[in-house]
Amino acid sequence: MGLFKSKRVVYKPVKDVNLGPDSTEFYLQANVKAPRMTGILVKIVAWLLECRIIGAFLLYILKGNNLIHKYITNADIEEPPLYVPLHHFEDHKEQEVKSLDLALTPPDKVQVAIDCLPTTLQRPINGTKPSFNRWTIMDYFRAYSSGDITPHMVAERFIAAVDESSKPTLQMGFFINYNVEDILRQANESTLRYQKGEPISVLDGVPVAIKDEIDCLPYPTTGGTKWLHKQRPCTDDACCIKRLRLCGAVLVGKTNMHELGAGTSGINPHYGATRNPHNASRIAGGSSSGSAAVVSAGLCPVALGVDGGGSVRMPAALCGIVGLKPTFSRIPHSGVIPLNWTVGMVGILAGTVEDSLITYAAISGEIPSRQPSSIPAKINLPLLPLTKSISKIKLAKYGKWFDDCSDDVRICCSGALNKLQGHYGWKIVDVTIPEIEVMRLAHYSTIGSECNTSLDYFQDKNLADFGWDARVALKIYGSFSSMEYIKAQKIRNRQLQFHKKIFSEADIIVSPTTGVTAYPIQDDALKTGELDYVNGGI
Amino acid sequence: MGLFKSKRVVYKPVKDVNLGPDSTEFYLQANVKAPRMTGILVKIVAWLLECRIIGAFLLYILKGNNLIHKYITNADIEEPPLYVPLHHFEDHKEQEVKSLDLALTPPDKVQVAIDCLPTTLQRPINGTKPSFNRWTIMDYFRAYSSGDITPHMVAERFIAAVDESSKPTLQMGFFINYNVEDILRQANESTLRYQKGEPISVLDGVPVAIKDEIDCLPYPTTGGTKWLHKQRPCTDDACCIKRLRLCGAVLVGKTNMHELGAGTSGINPHYGATRNPHNASRIAGGSSSGSAAVVSAGLCPVALGVDGGGSVRMPAALCGIVGLKPTFSRIPHSGVIPLNWTVGMVGILAGTVEDSLITYAAISGEIPSRQPSSIPAKINLPLLPLTKSISKIKLAKYGKWFDDCSDDVRICCSGALNKLQGHYGWKIVDVTIPEIEVMRLAHYSTIGSECNTSLDYFQDKNLADFGWDARVALKIYGSFSSMEYIKAQKIRNRQLQFHKKIFSEADIIVSPTTGVTAYPIQDDALKTGELDYVNGGI
Repeated sequence: MGLFKSKRVVYKPVKDVNLGPDSTEFYLQANVKAPRMTGILVKIVAWLLECRIIGAFLLYILKGNNLIHKYITNADIEEPPLYVPLHHFEDHKEQEVKSLDLALTPPDKVQVAIDCLPTTLQRPINGTKPSFNRWTIMDYFRAYSSGDITPHMVAERFIAAVDESSKPTLQMGFFINYNVEDILRQANESTLRYQKGEPISVLDGVPVAIKDEIDCLPYPTTGGTKWLHKQRPCTDDACCIKRLRLCGAVLVGKTNMHELGAGTSGINPHYGATRNPHNASRIAGGSSSGSAAVVSAGLCPVALGVDGGGSVRMPAALCGIVGLKPTFSRIPHSGVIPLNWTVGMVGILAGTVEDSLITYAAISGEIPSRQPSSIPAKINLPLLPLTKSISKIKLAKYGKWFDDCSDDVRICCSGALNKLQGHYGWKIVDVTIPEIEVMRLAHYSTIGSECNTSLDYFQDKNLADFGWDARVALKIYGSFSSMEYIKAQKIRNRQLQFHKKIFSEADIIVSPTTGVTAYPIQDDALKTGELDYVNGGI
Repeated sequence: MGLFKSKRVVYKPVKDVNLGPDSTEFYLQANVKAPRMTGILVKIVAWLLECRIIGAFLLYILKGNNLIHKYITNADIEEPPLYVPLHHFEDHKEQEVKSLDLALTPPDKVQVAIDCLPTTLQRPINGTKPSFNRWTIMDYFRAYSSGDITPHMVAERFIAAVDESSKPTLQMGFFINYNVEDILRQANESTLRYQKGEPISVLDGVPVAIKDEIDCLPYPTTGGTKWLHKQRPCTDDACCIKRLRLCGAVLVGKTNMHELGAGTSGINPHYGATRNPHNASRIAGGSSSGSAAVVSAGLCPVALGVDGGGSVRMPAALCGIVGLKPTFSRIPHSGVIPLNWTVGMVGILAGTVEDSLITYAAISGEIPSRQPSSIPAKINLPLLPLTKSISKIKLAKYGKWFDDCSDDVRICCSGALNKLQGHYGWKIVDVTIPEIEVMRLAHYSTIGSECNTSLDYFQDKNLADFGWDARVALKIYGSFSSMEYIKAQKIRNRQLQFHKKIFSEADIIVSPTTGVTAYPIQDDALKTGELDYVNGGI
């Protein structure tokens, strides 16, 4: 009840918060008070948290130290809770977009996306070798269409490369499961279609890897665990997988991930750490670790991940590829392990923006029976490159937040921004996005509470089956009260309103995706996992 | 986490639950294990619950005894949580309804409702005195239109009657606040309109009482407390009040209620117990106690209440009037004390079904800015009496639940059902509504968690300002974990699906509103309030 408490944080009503560059809103740096731990230390923390009395006391201290009590539990927030971030399609009559009718078949949707690409990319260019060594979807399609290369040949090369990457000398940890026969079967079917001159779409024969959180036959869906697939057998493809199959894509296996998505390092105690193709001694990030790494390594042009709190965007950034978390409810979630209900979305990891657009078109559109009211009948896809009203695109930048990162990230991102301004003449709008760190805490309370509830469904699990860092995460996840959960949804409402206001004045919010680059994998982290809330949260 | 637990309740997937009369679903009777307590006992329970260690232990026992652990906390529920019960308008092309365009002005909406009434009620019947001694809205309108009676005369009689009811000999406890000057001013304005022959609507000059949970100038909004209005000043009319004013209604004051809506007896330690006009030694029910009692006593044809868990329907039943809780989000909630966010709705207490229809039309329609997606542009109002397809109306009855009440309630309700069958030829469809008691527990966890979060906003409150039974309720409200809250929303999802299925086969679900009739007010309950979860929950 919080009776007799003084010095509470009282949030101003949203309408009174200044979002301009002259705002007096305080920028609170992420103040994560938890040492980076690996090995025996992680085990000790897990044991202590699992003691009933000591654990409750430690959790209280931990939440207090990390400002959850101050900014969530005991704070006064006027706004009502917003539980599900449904964004309803509003047609702003934008120019230079293509309207995508969501009732179209997946191959027809892909064609609409292709029509958004510059004509130089749309048509096969005979005899021209792609200058970039990572092949795009259109590169595959051109090569298959010309007959020089077949999906079968690609599948064989793919299988050899994955075998190579799994050898003790490399141990890249890309996949949890892949089935050589299944891959070859799909590739052969695609090869036949090209031989008949009847490819289904540009995705026909293109290898696509799937995070092991999404149901995809014939594989079990482990969620990065040793037990979850036994309790929740995979009996059908997820809806997004069905759509990829309808486009002819070759599904090449289930990628490694942070156990239960409960961390961002991608160091999985059961299936090995996913290593960064740019430097195998460093993490790939997570939790969609393998999906980011295989795209980065050039094994597939695109892969699917799931993003509940950066799990697509962060590994994409650390692996130097494109990561897209679509708007909530734009992609059906059925057939994805329900680790949460209000934050997770299937996302896309791709080598290029164009390839993420094509894949997004292929799998987009919620299933009518699940979300009767919120489904838009159509959405708009942008014409690429963003030539539209070139000088009119406005980039919102919150300087304090943009610069709150390591020197190399800041220099790189500032450089990119300068290029956009210089080359396209895009304008920067200086803004203030209030309560970013509070949003992070609210998000943590939300995804933690939901994940804890979700996993409670699996009754026969055994603590010993969990990795040590997952055990620590789950104890924290289980520590939230209903009031903390509801207040986190009030914070969510505030942020939705802040973001709406900012997007009414700018087209894009720019910021570094991660504050640091990929950090080294420590040897003692490989078995126990690693607790690194300082780097993990950024 | 619930690790290593055996014997958990595992809910069947909704699609596998048989809702027919031959269903094997177990009917769990409400098994409330808490003795009825008043006086010093309530104080002792409050003190114990407020001790940190003993309190936590007692709450654990209490929740266990009342099967919350068994059916919510430790249960396995597959369905995703449903947080907000938005029902999207589906036009079933029903016959004999009037379409109500929600963009109309309130007086125009009232006219649509009037057009739904039988013509005998629509037009003034000169010289005919209403046979029923409680006046309806149309009785007032006829009398005012004829000029025999003026709103001013009614206001004076009303004020005298309320004064009388407040005297020590009666102590009916109808109102928390009413302002003689304000009532007379409104009545005089209305009188002038009738004199000019320009009444705004049939509600012009009609006295309407308002539960003290809804903002209505010039009164403070106490929520039945001694402190809430000091922390949350009433600065404007609630949206529903504005609409009633636009129709010319005379707002006659703020009715008594159970403190914070946290109980159903209507025994308020600060403003007195609301007594039942049928028998002043008995409760009126709650929490919209005064609103039910003033209508029952014939002081107003209609009053507004707020219903989060029966708070309109229960006192209406105990006072022998009509209680309507509209579909969630049909009436704007702005200007109502936000004691919860996903269950409470402004509701209507009226002497007749016709009057509740007229009032519902006047105040219906969510404000577009608050619920952009879920607002229907129109709704359908039924033509009264329900003559439509007379033999086709189907009444769903769950026998075990229907009969789970005291003998007199069962006999009365069965008699009513027989009349409907005999007179109109309506058919009974025997159904099973599973998990009714679980729904009650889930509802309790939901409204409790939200009320606890809501009240936490008011930081300067003092325990001593609360009534004793409210103190006990608030300690229980604050005891729920985020997992319990989320699982309660999973139960909500199941119930929504069960109800949808039943409504696809029947038009109306029939059941007694309360399982018991109004019970006597005990003297020692008047100061401490009363804990009666046995009667209160039914």
